[in-house]
Amino acid sequence: MTTLAPPIRTATVRSIHTAATDVAPSTMHALVYHGPNDKGWEEVAKPTLIDDTDAIVRVDATTICGSDLHILKGDVPEVTDGRILGHEAVGTVEAIGVGVKHVKVGDRVLVSCITACGTCRFCREARYGQCLGGGGWVLGHLIDGTQAEYVRVPFADTSTYPVPKGASDEEILMLADILPTGYEIGVLNGHVQPGDVVAIVGAGPIGLSAILSARLFSPSHIIAIDLANSRLDAAKRFGADLVINNSHQDAVAAIMELTGGLGADVAIEAVGTPATFELATTLIRPCGHVANIGVHGKPATLHLETLWTRDITITTGLVDTYSTPTLLRLSTGGQLDASRFVTHHFAMDDMLDAYDTFSRAADTGALKVVITADARDAGVTQR
Amino acid sequence: MTTLAPPIRTATVRSIHTAATDVAPSTMHALVYHGPNDKGWEEVAKPTLIDDTDAIVRVDATTICGSDLHILKGDVPEVTDGRILGHEAVGTVEAIGVGVKHVKVGDRVLVSCITACGTCRFCREARYGQCLGGGGWVLGHLIDGTQAEYVRVPFADTSTYPVPKGASDEEILMLADILPTGYEIGVLNGHVQPGDVVAIVGAGPIGLSAILSARLFSPSHIIAIDLANSRLDAAKRFGADLVINNSHQDAVAAIMELTGGLGADVAIEAVGTPATFELATTLIRPCGHVANIGVHGKPATLHLETLWTRDITITTGLVDTYSTPTLLRLSTGGQLDASRFVTHHFAMDDMLDAYDTFSRAADTGALKVVITADARDAGVTQR
Amino acid sequence: MTTLAPPIRTATVRSIHTAATDVAPSTMHALVYHGPNDKGWEEVAKPTLIDDTDAIVRVDATTICGSDLHILKGDVPEVTDGRILGHEAVGTVEAIGVGVKHVKVGDRVLVSCITACGTCRFCREARYGQCLGGGGWVLGHLIDGTQAEYVRVPFADTSTYPVPKGASDEEILMLADILPTGYEIGVLNGHVQPGDVVAIVGAGPIGLSAILSARLFSPSHIIAIDLANSRLDAAKRFGADLVINNSHQDAVAAIMELTGGLGADVAIEAVGTPATFELATTLIRPCGHVANIGVHGKPATLHLETLWTRDITITTGLVDTYSTPTLLRLSTGGQLDASRFVTHHFAMDDMLDAYDTFSRAADTGALKVVITADARDAGVTQR
Amino acid sequence: MTTLAPPIRTATVRSIHTAATDVAPSTMHALVYHGPNDKGWEEVAKPTLIDDTDAIVRVDATTICGSDLHILKGDVPEVTDGRILGHEAVGTVEAIGVGVKHVKVGDRVLVSCITACGTCRFCREARYGQCLGGGGWVLGHLIDGTQAEYVRVPFADTSTYPVPKGASDEEILMLADILPTGYEIGVLNGHVQPGDVVAIVGAGPIGLSAILSARLFSPSHIIAIDLANSRLDAAKRFGADLVINNSHQDAVAAIMELTGGLGADVAIEAVGTPATFELATTLIRPCGHVANIGVHGKPATLHLETLWTRDITITTGLVDTYSTPTLLRLSTGGQLDASRFVTHHFAMDDMLDAYDTFSRAADTGALKVVITADARDAGVTQR
Repeated sequence: MTTLAPPIRTATVRSIHTAATDVAPSTMHALVYHGPNDKGWEEVAKPTLIDDTDAIVRVDATTICGSDLHILKGDVPEVTDGRILGHEAVGTVEAIGVGVKHVKVGDRVLVSCITACGTCRFCREARYGQCLGGGGWVLGHLIDGTQAEYVRVPFADTSTYPVPKGASDEEILMLADILPTGYEIGVLNGHVQPGDVVAIVGAGPIGLSAILSARLFSPSHIIAIDLANSRLDAAKRFGADLVINNSHQDAVAAIMELTGGLGADVAIEAVGTPATFELATTLIRPCGHVANIGVHGKPATLHLETLWTRDITITTGLVDTYSTPTLLRLSTGGQLDASRFVTHHFAMDDMLDAYDTFSRAADTGALKVVITADARDAGVTQR
Repeated sequence: MTTLAPPIRTATVRSIHTAATDVAPSTMHALVYHGPNDKGWEEVAKPTLIDDTDAIVRVDATTICGSDLHILKGDVPEVTDGRILGHEAVGTVEAIGVGVKHVKVGDRVLVSCITACGTCRFCREARYGQCLGGGGWVLGHLIDGTQAEYVRVPFADTSTYPVPKGASDEEILMLADILPTGYEIGVLNGHVQPGDVVAIVGAGPIGLSAILSARLFSPSHIIAIDLANSRLDAAKRFGADLVINNSHQDAVAAIMELTGGLGADVAIEAVGTPATFELATTLIRPCGHVANIGVHGKPATLHLETLWTRDITITTGLVDTYSTPTLLRLSTGGQLDASRFVTHHFAMDDMLDAYDTFSRAADTGALKVVITADARDAGVTQR
Repeated sequence: MTTLAPPIRTATVRSIHTAATDVAPSTMHALVYHGPNDKGWEEVAKPTLIDDTDAIVRVDATTICGSDLHILKGDVPEVTDGRILGHEAVGTVEAIGVGVKHVKVGDRVLVSCITACGTCRFCREARYGQCLGGGGWVLGHLIDGTQAEYVRVPFADTSTYPVPKGASDEEILMLADILPTGYEIGVLNGHVQPGDVVAIVGAGPIGLSAILSARLFSPSHIIAIDLANSRLDAAKRFGADLVINNSHQDAVAAIMELTGGLGADVAIEAVGTPATFELATTLIRPCGHVANIGVHGKPATLHLETLWTRDITITTGLVDTYSTPTLLRLSTGGQLDASRFVTHHFAMDDMLDAYDTFSRAADTGALKVVITADARDAGVTQR
Repeated sequence: MTTLAPPIRTATVRSIHTAATDVAPSTMHALVYHGPNDKGWEEVAKPTLIDDTDAIVRVDATTICGSDLHILKGDVPEVTDGRILGHEAVGTVEAIGVGVKHVKVGDRVLVSCITACGTCRFCREARYGQCLGGGGWVLGHLIDGTQAEYVRVPFADTSTYPVPKGASDEEILMLADILPTGYEIGVLNGHVQPGDVVAIVGAGPIGLSAILSARLFSPSHIIAIDLANSRLDAAKRFGADLVINNSHQDAVAAIMELTGGLGADVAIEAVGTPATFELATTLIRPCGHVANIGVHGKPATLHLETLWTRDITITTGLVDTYSTPTLLRLSTGGQLDASRFVTHHFAMDDMLDAYDTFSRAADTGALKVVITADARDAGVTQR
């Protein structure tokens, strides 16, 4: 009764497949995790299409995230021996499954840190980070990731974004994780509004992302709080107008003085320790918002004995990347200088050096390191 | 290089196909439009899978919508000769394309009036009515519809909903269009809140749907305004506590008296004429909401010379059906008596009688007519 | 240059004053706090107008709140020896200052637990609980309260509400604190929506208030969790459809089973202990809301090590009473059965008995006790 | 019984009064309306305190609004012969009634175009423009206004704002009407978000105000549409990145090209004619917002026959000035260059020249003219 036309795209994939078996190598290099403090840049099998909604993407540029360092410390037990790390990439589509409708072979795409099945209840509410259908944060976590020459991206139509013409790989790469995280989980969850006093606890890359994207809403003051002067200097360059080194300054007192004793309108926690979270809840005004971005390994103390009367809103969140189309527009339109994060460049074969530089950020001043397949793109530190 | 596993579901579909060619008839009956005032219950070819995300659904129950009558008057020129009408159904999945992931053969499903591609910008914002990827209102409009023994449903995973166990076909059928339309475009767009005074202009099926779903928010008063006492009687049964026949009563004066001269908090337009829209904008209080549901064929006059100072919000909208999962829960949980709309039952072979009864609603008292494939379900008028 | 007309109301107040010195007694009886576990029903001076925006209200009915018991335990150190307790009353205006514009002598008014200066930044945002101008929770706390024959109410125009005609004192008395607290801090902060699963931890009076007002939004399920079966029985009467005694039942498991492993949409904490708060944050679904109403004396543990990825929103709050006009409409319109809380009645001279009954709620089944000036209103236990 | 302490402030006011009767003149000069096209700069009686919440403010700087020209054309019939015009001022408080709590004699204050009683239901929702208690737009409309040496300001505590130290009169003067109107009724009602395409129809002073304040939200594009190149040049200076002269350019086509055929995210109507309103509703994308600011004298046509399916939100509004504290912070903090509007300066005795210059804006290029009591401040055109 039913006439099933042969899926049109099968042919396309097959021809790629056929061509590939002739010429393409079946192995590649990738950054492989082997347990706490054990990683290597190794030759492994190239990924292949598994589900019909997959794409295989050749990685043109990737980067390292603070959570990769967490994994390497052994803090994320669900990451197992043999896993390729990395969840951020800009690349070129090399093959697609028959169920992929919009992404095409040859497309330059942003591979988002969040994969979205597109049909579960959370995906239909644009909460892709909570995907129940096999997505969420899976790349470099539950499946192999982007710190490799090639990566398999599930649900390619809803998990990649076309790179706008004229945009550079490294600028767009900053939208894979760090910018939507600072914007969605910090600025939008914190409900930053024009005229607000915004306090950002922690001026590492994610805090800087919150600073940069908070400016989109024209707050009155952006106050960065950190223990390291070097990070506070970066905070100033990214747009904080007041910086507080809370190793020797009283952050709460400074903010109370600035705000007539009320406290900040919005506090964004971008560290992930009990002390910094507690600080965020202490410097906030009545009716204010505390937006947690920090990755926490331990419980924090919530001082409900004082907060219960103060009409505080506290949010947590894993990035959903629903803002990626907006951020692409703002970045390519010049309203958001995404490439400002990039401090170092490496060729892919120097992946271990890139890890070394990024993991010693206090010494190297690294914010984001860009690792490119084409060695000619590397070796230049932009700023 | 890439190894493409044969799509698993192909086998399933093929076996269905094979089985189907043996036993299933290749034709069916359907309500076919042939131009203004020209329709028939005719033998036509059964639908087949076209895209890999399609499902073929055997229609167990369908109904007729006011917009079907609009089409038959010739008001919707994009509907062309030969089109099968209808955009509401409950049925059983008979075949699925290889790209369908969640819907399975044999599933009982609600076929929504809105089809969602699931990947365009509007679908990703849950505004499926505005789908740019081939969805939106297409069934019985741009492609063949549900007033037939079988229907092809595109994007089956994001355009159908499983029927909860124990729920009746006819109760769930009311969630295909009429209930989400009244709820989303009337009640949610109008921002009905507990304690509000809600005026509903027009007490036809869509106005009644707004009355029924407005009650979910516990307004203080629901006022129905109509020209026909029979419809106002229905409004009372659905939950209006005040009814106004504006053929001889001054609706604005009555509402001003009830509200101390301020006007209603929310006005829902559910007719679709310039006069009723103007009435809705006249009876509203400062800072109130006017939610238009009515299908308009002509421009209306907006009295900005008085409204410009009054902080009014006016919304329009085509249903998105993002509320369907919520309404399914409320209906099966007993908070929303969806089956209350059903006034008449017909067997599918009596489709023309069903149209006759529905089109003469003033005489027959028809609200929604349920048309079932199984003649044993028909012939009983529930209330 | 400026001609200042003598304020019209001075005459009114003076005549009251004059008349009063002739006939009215200059003392009254009141419930006076003298330190932890030390209170008395004593003869004290009647209150007099201090600020020109004050009113003196003769108390017709008052009640006792859980926070009064907290004060008596010594938990609220800012309450000092000699303070008259109580922050809830319905009464009759006996005198007004010259600056009072709307409240008139002889008016029956609801005295709200929250006093609002009306001009500070928080009052202008309708966050009266955070008033910076001398309001907020002051009655029976920082100034003398309502458990007395007369009470001075500051900022009378913005801190009292006219009692609608036909409404009983005791019904309206429930709107002084308990109903707006459950509604604003529980239901509205928790963002309860139609179809939600709402878990309410604690079924004392404030939890019951949350149950009653949650129903205004037609949730799918209201689940009450408590250690005492008597309170769970009350929860059923107020509208919970599922009750869990977590002295021997696993509340989290029960809710996970009901919600397919996701958790509740909204959790309302109505106890005020670290354990119950932690329970509320454990049973919540990703993207859910935890609304804290409980009065906490100690910090709680916030499990950010699991919550940081789950998109949770946590709110705290002191009632603002911005919803009082809405609740008055709902109560007098029959949508909200406010008088359902009243379990016992006392004459004012039996105030100490009323405290005894209320403080032994586990034995007496007391929810709210109504204490009336007119002994004829007392002595009847309504339900 | 009640002891009424003599109101403390009476003494203050009386001493002013006494001092004033000795030295202050009892007349002043003011711009008086005598019917259509008939006005004069005339000697009139100085205002005196009437209600105890009044303040008398010595006007240091005032300005002229487009609505003053409407009044002079006879378009606003409720303005009667003898009325002093003007609803914008910065001045110094000279006397206060006994009921004024926060404003003090000698304070420099911004006199807002909207007067707020502070206690009616709309004032308690921060919708001061809809005040039911004698406020709203009354100055220079229903009571004497600010184009005078002195003005009586009712409800002084809730209708004036302290001028921050170091801020200039003319910068703050722009916050009396034009900036909150563009921000609240245009930008906030239109829900401008980062990355949006914002179309502003009309580049007169109010359209420029919308342009300036839209930038606070970092839209991708601000498109100004007008018939006059001179106004479009101003639009560019205020921050529009695209300007369209729709006397000879097709605005809808240009916006559709920019937006891939979808339309603008937000359209702000800032003219007040049927044609410009219709244009705003035509260039908007599905799910977009049309925010009307324009003062309309005639009804407009609303094309519901196309808009009914497009999920459009249309808002109207009179400014509430709830954003004034925010705008004061942004202006004094340098995020909002309020003084950019000021094109001409006049001494108060040259009020008629100021009107002449402002009413011939097409020739003079006038945006806002500042009229100062101190002649030394005038005579300089800032830019």
